[in-house]
Amino acid sequence: MSLTLGELARHLGAELVGSPEQVVVAVRPLDEAGPQHLSFLHNPKYVAQARSSRAGAILVKDAELLPDRTLLVTPEPYLAMARALELLHPARRPAPGVHPSAVVAEDAVLGSGVWIGPQAVVGAGCRIGDGALIGAGCVLGPEAEIGRDTVLHPRVVIEDGCRVGARCILHAGVVIGSDGFGFATVGGVHHKVPQVGIVVVEDDVELGANVCVDRATLGETRIGRGTKVDNLVQIAHNVQVGEGSLLVAQVGISGSTRLGHHVVMAGQSGAAGHLKIGDQAVVGAKSAVIKDVPDGAFVSGIPARPHREWLAANAALRRLEGMRSRLKELEEAVAELRSKLGE
Amino acid sequence: MSLTLGELARHLGAELVGSPEQVVVAVRPLDEAGPQHLSFLHNPKYVAQARSSRAGAILVKDAELLPDRTLLVTPEPYLAMARALELLHPARRPAPGVHPSAVVAEDAVLGSGVWIGPQAVVGAGCRIGDGALIGAGCVLGPEAEIGRDTVLHPRVVIEDGCRVGARCILHAGVVIGSDGFGFATVGGVHHKVPQVGIVVVEDDVELGANVCVDRATLGETRIGRGTKVDNLVQIAHNVQVGEGSLLVAQVGISGSTRLGHHVVMAGQSGAAGHLKIGDQAVVGAKSAVIKDVPDGAFVSGIPARPHREWLAANAALRRLEGMRSRLKELEEAVAELRSKLGE
Amino acid sequence: MSLTLGELARHLGAELVGSPEQVVVAVRPLDEAGPQHLSFLHNPKYVAQARSSRAGAILVKDAELLPDRTLLVTPEPYLAMARALELLHPARRPAPGVHPSAVVAEDAVLGSGVWIGPQAVVGAGCRIGDGALIGAGCVLGPEAEIGRDTVLHPRVVIEDGCRVGARCILHAGVVIGSDGFGFATVGGVHHKVPQVGIVVVEDDVELGANVCVDRATLGETRIGRGTKVDNLVQIAHNVQVGEGSLLVAQVGISGSTRLGHHVVMAGQSGAAGHLKIGDQAVVGAKSAVIKDVPDGAFVSGIPARPHREWLAANAALRRLEGMRSRLKELEEAVAELRSKLGE
Repeated sequence: MSLTLGELARHLGAELVGSPEQVVVAVRPLDEAGPQHLSFLHNPKYVAQARSSRAGAILVKDAELLPDRTLLVTPEPYLAMARALELLHPARRPAPGVHPSAVVAEDAVLGSGVWIGPQAVVGAGCRIGDGALIGAGCVLGPEAEIGRDTVLHPRVVIEDGCRVGARCILHAGVVIGSDGFGFATVGGVHHKVPQVGIVVVEDDVELGANVCVDRATLGETRIGRGTKVDNLVQIAHNVQVGEGSLLVAQVGISGSTRLGHHVVMAGQSGAAGHLKIGDQAVVGAKSAVIKDVPDGAFVSGIPARPHREWLAANAALRRLEGMRSRLKELEEAVAELRSKLGE
Repeated sequence: MSLTLGELARHLGAELVGSPEQVVVAVRPLDEAGPQHLSFLHNPKYVAQARSSRAGAILVKDAELLPDRTLLVTPEPYLAMARALELLHPARRPAPGVHPSAVVAEDAVLGSGVWIGPQAVVGAGCRIGDGALIGAGCVLGPEAEIGRDTVLHPRVVIEDGCRVGARCILHAGVVIGSDGFGFATVGGVHHKVPQVGIVVVEDDVELGANVCVDRATLGETRIGRGTKVDNLVQIAHNVQVGEGSLLVAQVGISGSTRLGHHVVMAGQSGAAGHLKIGDQAVVGAKSAVIKDVPDGAFVSGIPARPHREWLAANAALRRLEGMRSRLKELEEAVAELRSKLGE
Repeated sequence: MSLTLGELARHLGAELVGSPEQVVVAVRPLDEAGPQHLSFLHNPKYVAQARSSRAGAILVKDAELLPDRTLLVTPEPYLAMARALELLHPARRPAPGVHPSAVVAEDAVLGSGVWIGPQAVVGAGCRIGDGALIGAGCVLGPEAEIGRDTVLHPRVVIEDGCRVGARCILHAGVVIGSDGFGFATVGGVHHKVPQVGIVVVEDDVELGANVCVDRATLGETRIGRGTKVDNLVQIAHNVQVGEGSLLVAQVGISGSTRLGHHVVMAGQSGAAGHLKIGDQAVVGAKSAVIKDVPDGAFVSGIPARPHREWLAANAALRRLEGMRSRLKELEEAVAELRSKLGE
C-alpha cells in the first residue's frame, strides 16, 4: 500500500507543505520513521525529536514548529494519524457469506453483506444488520441482535435476547449476557435469583478481549454509545454506563451502579454497587469507589476520595517517620522543661 | 406467561391477601411495577416506596406494613421473588439430543435427556449426567465428568479428567483444569512442573463468565458444594474452597490456600498462597490477605487486617494533616518555653 | 505407569541410596506418600516431615538429612521432582493429523507431526511448526505463525499476523493480538486508532487461561523467551516483557511499558504505561507501579515504592493511634508548663 502526499492531504483535509507527488507507504513513530514513512507530532514535548526525525512527512498542527520539513498541517494531528493508518493499512474484510461450517438457524435474519465465519453458531430468531462480521467460533443465542457494520472477533458469546448496536467492535472472548451474581440466601443456602433481563450495547462501542457484561436481573444492563472498554473488564447486572466513557483494563463495576457520560475509570479500579458516578468523573488506577462521585470529580485511593486528598495522604504517610522523630524530640524537650521547673 | 395470584400463592406457599383470580405477568421492582406485575418488599427501608408502588401484588413478610394492598405474605419475600421469577420466566431448554455439528467421542457416556449443542466437543471417556446441557462450542477433554442437570453455557472448557457435580451452572468462557503456575527455577530458567492433578467442582456450584480454575499439581483443586463464583475470578492450583462460599468478581486466590465454608471474598480481593481463611470469614473488597484469617473474622485493607483497624487507620490517615499542624504548634510553643527558661 | 528407582536414577542423573529394583508409581507430597510413591524434600524446614513420611523414596539434596531412608540424591530435588512427574505422568498426545471437523485454509503450511483438533480454524497463510498441537476450537487468523512443539489448549485465539515461538504452552481462552486500547479523542468522541502492529511471543513462553495480549499500534508487542504468565493477565499494546520473567495471575501492564529480564510481578499488581521496570525487579502483590523501577529493586504499595518504605509506612500507620495519644499528652503538658510560666 502506498499513497502520495497529495492524496493523503486530500483525504485528511490537511494542508500540504511539500511535493504532492512524494509517496509514503506506512506510518511510523518519529524515532523509527524513514523517508518513505509518515509520522506525527501531537505533543509539543517531542518537537526536538520531530526536527531530527528522518520521516518523509510529518502530521503537525503548527507548521512553524518544523521549518524546512515536508508537512501535512491539520488541527488534529493524532486524529489525522489514525485516519492515515486506516488508509495505509486497510482492514481485511472477508467476502460476504456464511461459511459452510457455521450453524445458522433457519429463521435468523441476516442483512446484506453479512459474513458468518467458520464454526460460528447463530441461534433462532437472531437479527444481524447489514455488513456485520461474525467471527469464527462466535455463539449468538436465540433472539440476539447485532447492528449494522458491527464486528465480532472470534469466539464472542452473545447470550439470548441481548442486543449490540451498530459499528461496534467486540474482541475475542467477550461474553455478553452471562447471569448476574444474584442469590437469595436463606439458612446459608444461596438460592439463585433468575436473571431475566438483557444487555444492551449501544452504537459505536468497543469491548476488549474477554470482557464480561452480565444481563440484568430485571430490565437492562446498558453500555452507552461511543463508550470504549478495555480487556478483562467486568460489568455487573443492571449497571448503566453513559456515553463516551472509557473503562481501562481489569476495571470492575458492581451491580446497579450508574456511570454518567465521559467517565474515565483507570486500570484495575472498581466501584461498589448501587452508586452514581457523575458525568466526566475520573477514577484513578486501582482505586475503589464506595460512595457516589460528583460530576467532574477526580477521585482515587482505597477507598476513593478526592485525588488531592489522596495525594496529601500519601505525602503525609511518607513524612510519618519524620513526625515520629519530631514527636520524640518534643517529648524529651518537654520532660527537660518539666524537670527544670521542678516537677 | 401469566399466573393467577391463587396459583402463585400455592406454588410459593404464601398466604394471599387479595383475589386468587387476579393475574400477574412478570416481576418488576417496586418503582417500575404496574397493575399486571408482582413486586417485593424485603428491605424495610423501602416501605414507603412499596406503599406508593403501582404493583398489582407485593411479596412481603409482614402484612401490617402494607395495609389495603394485595399481598403474598411469606417469611422470605426475596426467595419467593426468585421462585416467582422461575415460574414467570421459565428457562428455555433445548430438546435433548446431540447437534449434528458436535463432535462426541464414541465411548463418551451420555445420560438421558442430555443436550450437546452445536460445535461442541466431547472427548474420549467423558461421562455426562442425565439432563445436563452442554452449550455451543464447549470443549470437554478426555475423561471429563459432568453431573446431572448441570448447565454449561457456550464455550466452556473442561480439561481432561476434571469433574463437575450436579446442578452446577458454568457461564460462558469458564476454563476448568488449566495448568497451575508451577516452575522449578534453576539458573534463571523456569522449568515447568507438570500439573497432574485435577479439579473437582462439587454440586450446586455456579461459576461466572471467564472464571479460571487451575488443576492441582498433585491431587485436587476443589470448590465446595453450593459455592457461587462471580465473573473473572482466578482460583489457583490446589486451592480448596469450602461449601456455600461467595467469591465476587475478579477475586484471585493463590495456590494451596484453603477457604472454609460460607466465606465471602468481596470484589477484586486476593489471597496469597498456603493460607487458611476460616469459616464464615469476610474479606473486604480490594483487600489482600497475606496471613491466616480466623473463623468469622472480617478483614480488609492491603495487607488485610481486622476491618475495624482498617477503618481506624483510614480515619487516622485523614487526620494526619491536622496532626502535622498540631506538632508544628507544639514545637513553636516548646521553643518559646525554652527561650523563656534561658536555654 | 511405574518405574524402578534404577530407571529413575538414570533418567534424573541422581545417585540412588537403596535398591534399584524398587518400584514407584507416582509422585506425592511427603505427608500423602506411601511405599509405592516418590516424594521430595527441597525445603529444609520439612526435614522432620520427610523423616516421618511413608514415601518409598525421597528426592533430596543432602543424603545426611535423611539417614536410613531410600533416597535419590540430586543437587536440585525440586527440578528432579518435575522431571519425575513427566516420566510417571507422560502427557497425552493426540495422534498427528487434522480432525475432519477442523477448517484449515488450503494455503496453510503444517509441519510434520502437527495435530489440529476438532472445530479448530486455521486461516489463510498460517504456518504451524513440526509437532505443534492446535487444540479443539482454536482460531488462528490469517498469516499467524506457531512454532514447533508449541501446544495451544482449547479455544485459544491468535489474531492475524501474530507469531508464537517454539515449545510455548498457551492455555484455554488465551487471546493474542486483540486491538490495543487507543483512541484519538476530539470533542468527546473517541476515534479508533487502528492497531496495525503484531504480537510476538518468543520461545518457551507459557500463557495462562484467558490471558490477553494486545497487538501493537505500530510495531510489536513482545513477550521474551522463557517468560511465564499466569491466568487472566492483561498485556497492553507495545509492551515489551524481557526473558525469564514471571507475571502472576491478574497482573495488568499498560501500553508501551518495558519489563527487563527476570522481572517478577506478583498477583493483581499493575504498571502504568510508558515505564521501564528494570532487570530482576520484583513488584509486590496488588501494587501499582507508576514510575520507573531500577534493576533489582523490590517495590510494593499503591503507588509502589521501595518495599522497605512500604513496610515502614504500614508499621507507622499501625502506630498512628499511639502517636495521636502522645500528641495529646504533650499538648496538655505544654499547656501546663505555659500556665506555670504565667502565660
